[in-house]
Amino acid sequence: MSHTVRDKKMLLTRLKKIQGQSTALEKMLNSDHECADVLQQLAAIRGAVNGMMMQVIEGHLTDHVVKEPEEAQREADLGVVLQVIKSYLK
Amino acid sequence: MSHTVRDKKMLLTRLKKIQGQSTALEKMLNSDHECADVLQQLAAIRGAVNGMMMQVIEGHLTDHVVKEPEEAQREADLGVVLQVIKSYLK
Amino acid sequence: MSHTVRDKKMLLTRLKKIQGQSTALEKMLNSDHECADVLQQLAAIRGAVNGMMMQVIEGHLTDHVVKEPEEAQREADLGVVLQVIKSYLK
Amino acid sequence: MSHTVRDKKMLLTRLKKIQGQSTALEKMLNSDHECADVLQQLAAIRGAVNGMMMQVIEGHLTDHVVKEPEEAQREADLGVVLQVIKSYLK
Repeated sequence: MSHTVRDKKMLLTRLKKIQGQSTALEKMLNSDHECADVLQQLAAIRGAVNGMMMQVIEGHLTDHVVKEPEEAQREADLGVVLQVIKSYLK
Repeated sequence: MSHTVRDKKMLLTRLKKIQGQSTALEKMLNSDHECADVLQQLAAIRGAVNGMMMQVIEGHLTDHVVKEPEEAQREADLGVVLQVIKSYLK
Repeated sequence: MSHTVRDKKMLLTRLKKIQGQSTALEKMLNSDHECADVLQQLAAIRGAVNGMMMQVIEGHLTDHVVKEPEEAQREADLGVVLQVIKSYLK
Repeated sequence: MSHTVRDKKMLLTRLKKIQGQSTALEKMLNSDHECADVLQQLAAIRGAVNGMMMQVIEGHLTDHVVKEPEEAQREADLGVVLQVIKSYLK
């Protein structure tokens, strides 16, 4: 079973949080607000997205690389995650 | 008029995109999927959030610092944005 | 006086630290070492560079934007720093 | 042979570049300069450090996780790199 299936409940809970934060930001923009609050809300969404990303990266490296018995498959599965990690290290 | 009010339409369009990407990720998690696709979708959401953040930072620095005639107010308004920029430079 | 001239001593102290960390990394690579230590040393250098960058960004925004009496000059000086901030928000 | 030993020449070349950029920044700070140039030089150093970090992370994941036959050792070696990746995803 893939980690994103096994961890589906946790991932959906994280996603619900991001969706809730986005809805709150939408309400904020549609009513009187301080732009400092918009900045803060966006920073909260960014933090939640990064947290979810880290969980998926860690799950992928653990399930599809560490626990994968075949070296060739480990190598292929590592390639998937390296692109995402590179995008953070630009 | 604050930049987040003036740019409300553009900001809501960006937010709609983030909400759409999140809904697509939710569907993905609730159906058969490749975890590589989950990683890619999260990276897309992250990019959209960063793009929206940059627009708000730029709008804030332009409207509340560059165009603000009072130096003391410029200084106060800079402080709001510095905290967010610092969070990116950790 | 520009902030990087006024803060020269502090900036050179930060830079000396980065140069010292780099020299330590060089010695590490030229002798027996654990690659975990190489990772840690690079993370320390990265943190020091980000810290120095934040000091220069803050000094630039304060001296050349907040304290600049001419709006047109404030706008031009903001442009210099926006490019760097954008590179962190990709 | 560890990847940081095998790739020693490449890693030292990257480090020499970072050291050269730091020396150039030192000269810049000790002479007349534009603070925009200081920002640009720091951004170049940051890029070089991130590039070196990515090479070490990729080498570590490949040599100590993908090519490691023992699952328990793969798991331990993954832990080393996860901390560094997390620092980028904050």
